[in-house]
Amino acid sequence: MVIIMKNDATPKQIEEIEQKLVDLGLKVHRIDGDIRSIIGAIGDTTKVDKRIFEHSDGVLRIVRIMEPYKLASRSFHEDNSVIKFDGTEIGGDKVIIMAGPCAVESEEQLFTIAKSVKEAGATVLRGGAFKPRTSPYSFQGMGEEGLKLLRQAGDEFGMSVISEILEATHIDLLAKYVDIFQVGARNMQNFWLLRELSKTNKPVLLKRGMSATIEEVLMAAEYIMSGGNYHVICCERGIRTFETYTRNTMDISAIPAIKKLSHLPIVADPSHGTGIRAHVAPMARAAVAAGADGLIIEVHNDPDRAVSDGPQSLFPDQFKNLMEELKVITWAIGRSI
Amino acid sequence: MVIIMKNDATPKQIEEIEQKLVDLGLKVHRIDGDIRSIIGAIGDTTKVDKRIFEHSDGVLRIVRIMEPYKLASRSFHEDNSVIKFDGTEIGGDKVIIMAGPCAVESEEQLFTIAKSVKEAGATVLRGGAFKPRTSPYSFQGMGEEGLKLLRQAGDEFGMSVISEILEATHIDLLAKYVDIFQVGARNMQNFWLLRELSKTNKPVLLKRGMSATIEEVLMAAEYIMSGGNYHVICCERGIRTFETYTRNTMDISAIPAIKKLSHLPIVADPSHGTGIRAHVAPMARAAVAAGADGLIIEVHNDPDRAVSDGPQSLFPDQFKNLMEELKVITWAIGRSI
Amino acid sequence: MVIIMKNDATPKQIEEIEQKLVDLGLKVHRIDGDIRSIIGAIGDTTKVDKRIFEHSDGVLRIVRIMEPYKLASRSFHEDNSVIKFDGTEIGGDKVIIMAGPCAVESEEQLFTIAKSVKEAGATVLRGGAFKPRTSPYSFQGMGEEGLKLLRQAGDEFGMSVISEILEATHIDLLAKYVDIFQVGARNMQNFWLLRELSKTNKPVLLKRGMSATIEEVLMAAEYIMSGGNYHVICCERGIRTFETYTRNTMDISAIPAIKKLSHLPIVADPSHGTGIRAHVAPMARAAVAAGADGLIIEVHNDPDRAVSDGPQSLFPDQFKNLMEELKVITWAIGRSI
Amino acid sequence: MVIIMKNDATPKQIEEIEQKLVDLGLKVHRIDGDIRSIIGAIGDTTKVDKRIFEHSDGVLRIVRIMEPYKLASRSFHEDNSVIKFDGTEIGGDKVIIMAGPCAVESEEQLFTIAKSVKEAGATVLRGGAFKPRTSPYSFQGMGEEGLKLLRQAGDEFGMSVISEILEATHIDLLAKYVDIFQVGARNMQNFWLLRELSKTNKPVLLKRGMSATIEEVLMAAEYIMSGGNYHVICCERGIRTFETYTRNTMDISAIPAIKKLSHLPIVADPSHGTGIRAHVAPMARAAVAAGADGLIIEVHNDPDRAVSDGPQSLFPDQFKNLMEELKVITWAIGRSI
Repeated sequence: MVIIMKNDATPKQIEEIEQKLVDLGLKVHRIDGDIRSIIGAIGDTTKVDKRIFEHSDGVLRIVRIMEPYKLASRSFHEDNSVIKFDGTEIGGDKVIIMAGPCAVESEEQLFTIAKSVKEAGATVLRGGAFKPRTSPYSFQGMGEEGLKLLRQAGDEFGMSVISEILEATHIDLLAKYVDIFQVGARNMQNFWLLRELSKTNKPVLLKRGMSATIEEVLMAAEYIMSGGNYHVICCERGIRTFETYTRNTMDISAIPAIKKLSHLPIVADPSHGTGIRAHVAPMARAAVAAGADGLIIEVHNDPDRAVSDGPQSLFPDQFKNLMEELKVITWAIGRSI
Repeated sequence: MVIIMKNDATPKQIEEIEQKLVDLGLKVHRIDGDIRSIIGAIGDTTKVDKRIFEHSDGVLRIVRIMEPYKLASRSFHEDNSVIKFDGTEIGGDKVIIMAGPCAVESEEQLFTIAKSVKEAGATVLRGGAFKPRTSPYSFQGMGEEGLKLLRQAGDEFGMSVISEILEATHIDLLAKYVDIFQVGARNMQNFWLLRELSKTNKPVLLKRGMSATIEEVLMAAEYIMSGGNYHVICCERGIRTFETYTRNTMDISAIPAIKKLSHLPIVADPSHGTGIRAHVAPMARAAVAAGADGLIIEVHNDPDRAVSDGPQSLFPDQFKNLMEELKVITWAIGRSI
Repeated sequence: MVIIMKNDATPKQIEEIEQKLVDLGLKVHRIDGDIRSIIGAIGDTTKVDKRIFEHSDGVLRIVRIMEPYKLASRSFHEDNSVIKFDGTEIGGDKVIIMAGPCAVESEEQLFTIAKSVKEAGATVLRGGAFKPRTSPYSFQGMGEEGLKLLRQAGDEFGMSVISEILEATHIDLLAKYVDIFQVGARNMQNFWLLRELSKTNKPVLLKRGMSATIEEVLMAAEYIMSGGNYHVICCERGIRTFETYTRNTMDISAIPAIKKLSHLPIVADPSHGTGIRAHVAPMARAAVAAGADGLIIEVHNDPDRAVSDGPQSLFPDQFKNLMEELKVITWAIGRSI
Repeated sequence: MVIIMKNDATPKQIEEIEQKLVDLGLKVHRIDGDIRSIIGAIGDTTKVDKRIFEHSDGVLRIVRIMEPYKLASRSFHEDNSVIKFDGTEIGGDKVIIMAGPCAVESEEQLFTIAKSVKEAGATVLRGGAFKPRTSPYSFQGMGEEGLKLLRQAGDEFGMSVISEILEATHIDLLAKYVDIFQVGARNMQNFWLLRELSKTNKPVLLKRGMSATIEEVLMAAEYIMSGGNYHVICCERGIRTFETYTRNTMDISAIPAIKKLSHLPIVADPSHGTGIRAHVAPMARAAVAAGADGLIIEVHNDPDRAVSDGPQSLFPDQFKNLMEELKVITWAIGRSI
């Protein structure tokens, strides 16, 4: 950590900062420039709240030299983390495909879709039972009934199951049915929920918030890991920018960035990342070409009648074609699907 | 609602859309342009999920003519809503000032600050008991003990009390102590929490999410109102933009915008909106000059030793000076403080 | 074009709008909703300045049904435009690779790099002679001397040549040496320059501005086309968002979006799009996987000594490896390189 | 300047960096942390291109301790710069109001508006003669004829005159008529234009680019100053964010920020900053309350018939009322108008 002092910082102010650092068990090293002094602090600063220093008199700003997360950082864990669940693993050479409807709507709907995505090569079945909706007047999901159907379909077709968790009090309920908890973009900084998930030992797929920086994604991962649950999978799903033609701007460059900063696996969600069916396949190919460890994709047998997010769901045939293209692309970069 | 059809939409596709609209009880009116047809739907479309139409074959995009919220809209409620609590009212001519420390830290700290802000003219005491923190290693708040102190200080100095709620299961606990629930920016789209708050009858101060559009703020307000709790106060507290010199970009223009679109009161939070002490007073003045119905400001007697957000807290003297300036500014625009 | 009237618009205001539309030769069609009226205008509205209506009394807002550009729109030109220059063509099945140093620095540097990128499969040589630099104290380019070297290297290795134009008065100078004019991101809305380029007949590679919407990119293309120069190649090179880890956020989803809205070819610039060498290859692969018609990439034989943008330049070996990967990826999507 | 080395930087790489710094005449000071080393460079680094170091092997990233601009920085010039022109001065206690139509349209229009804004208290007359328009089909301005009218109206009513310059070759033309050159948002990084303006000695009002950081605004000011023209006035006019309800998001907090970082005056443009007439007065008041040294406002006697930007122009009466409010607000903060 480097503390940059103001032009007019007094010797007494500088001394007080140095003392604070020493009190935290850090070694101190000062460099006096012509206009400003800077103070370097050596030691483990991960758990130091930098804002404690920012409000001290005479301080201009603080620069972190090390990332503010430690468990999620590649600096302390060079090898890729491979997350295992139910016979599958993510973060290794194989690119994992999670697919299914946006929301579970009925047994017939779910089983039809599950069958087709399994045949095309998906290994994890997705489907929402509790839906976060921007309008209070929209369909809010089937609840536990949806989770049961999801588990049945997963068992029937030999797939793992992932579903979104909205609320800490639902953890036990979801844990009965799903193999992976999905934390949605709007809950990425619901720290209460993250803390409760940190006490479980099931994998958590953590979606990037719409305005979350890459550092904040990894800080949210750190929250879950700091409680003992190391099974975190990051997920890029589009950020909010000035561009409104696409529902979000899918930040494909976050994929190599997170791979570099962290040992955690990262998957991409081209369905929510674009919100437009015609863009899903191009962005799915792009994500894999850029190094994603997996994809989570919405597929619907009858998107015209889907109760949620139909316009961004692939038809089963489109999904099958995409899987064929992805086989070649993974091969181009030394991976498989 | 207007549905814009694709260039190559077939008569059958157009007919299907028209039928869907009729089935929803809407009247239909088509305009055929040289290249594209558009279909106007007349009737109450507030509760229509526009995405149901977006995924129909032949549809290019949907344009809403009316806002997707109704209870929060000024179109259906011309006069300003005035929210009353505990002898105070917000949304009328008087600009209401809420002030206090970021986090409650001790009885001495809280009472010292409460006394000074009350003397300067604040009528509501703020203070965090449950703190959402981006790092799992930071101070998380005093919990119920903090709420008790807040209530005691409020009673001692004749102030109403506001504190942040992080989690739906805490509603009963907070309700015992506070006059206003504060929903933080990171929870603005925690729909589970909003729905539970809609069942209470206490005022809710709803902070704008860091990447929430003005429409989304009003949709979140609609969530709370749709359950029967009409006592919603919006709060601008800075949005995330490319500019990193300030912690957030405080969107002062959201103040006249929300006043125009909605009858709900809007307050501004220049402390979180800027994150920089030296900017708090200029932005507080700007917010009031732009028409804000109130301010929520962090004040600390000893910001250097504050455990949370010290760098953006005003000193009591700065707060007092600001109040003097605000008296003149409110007078310039025909209000008072 | 649809004009949405305010809730309280008077019959007289509505009539005035209708008259204005009729005066412009448009047909008028009104729909009266319960709260608001809307007026549809039928006919060619491309050249109508919608702001003329926005400031009329009683108008709430304007919605365009057709894009505000016509020459660049796929609505009026279904087939892909294929731009030809000097034996090469872009916009067809073949993906075109433009490569070279950020800035021309010397004959030796340029010829070494040109030789290696040509051998690896590039067909167009890039290199800056006039450099736009954010600091007045940075290297500003070799000027005409650089252009001469570029032309010589192009001729020597059988490559077309592209270089950036900063200023309308340079058009004749650059025209002597280059095959393609490159308009940089900061000049995308330098309308004076665009208008002068519209009078030439050389291809223009138009880089997306850092905060330009997709619609604005196509409006800038329309500027060039409206003067008679139809040879426009769009280029995605990263937009400015809140994320600061990468220099820009490369908007890969703009690639399928522009292909859908326009018949013009689109290439991607992963060097400026990321600013980080390690991200260039993943993003180059992603762009091609998403459907880009070409790439423009910085390669330097000795990036450590490059006078401009070294950190984002690939080493010749990295470029060669990338070309091998791209061969497989283009094959996966039915194209070639 | 501090250079942060990668975790795995070798002693040789560190040594090479240190040597490069010494070669630039800087003193070097290294701090070895447990994981990373950092190298501090002491001396004048304003003119050092930090990217030269970023591409050296072993370097993680560079942190500037001093701003990359020097002439514009308050670190080297503590007192406010007061820019004088034609009897007026900006940057002192008095808040300066520039007002007039968006575009000069006719003698009658201009003289009517000039008279009314002068009477209300404006001292500078604004009006566009060369207009940058996003559509090639929109009105492009009256050219020199407009400049002449502007000068005549200025002389008639005793006002200084400001107009926008689009192109370096127009400098001599505009210099004949205007007292202040206005550089529009889209040209803020037209470095060619900035360099040519640096050779004049007339004040330049430099509008912030739509996606320009505060640092970039001051770097653009540095461009003009580095050539010898120190008469630069910054102008906040709204930035592009995800919010689309307002045309731009006016960044009021940039006003105190620029005042703190730089000695240059800053004015605000609430007309372009909001694009909505009803928001102009609230944002004008907010800008002055936040410390702006001036305002530039569009006023039109007949906005319904304005050929450009009518919807954001105030009516003369609205402008007059605003001036009354501003008198009180400037008084609240110890200034005058």
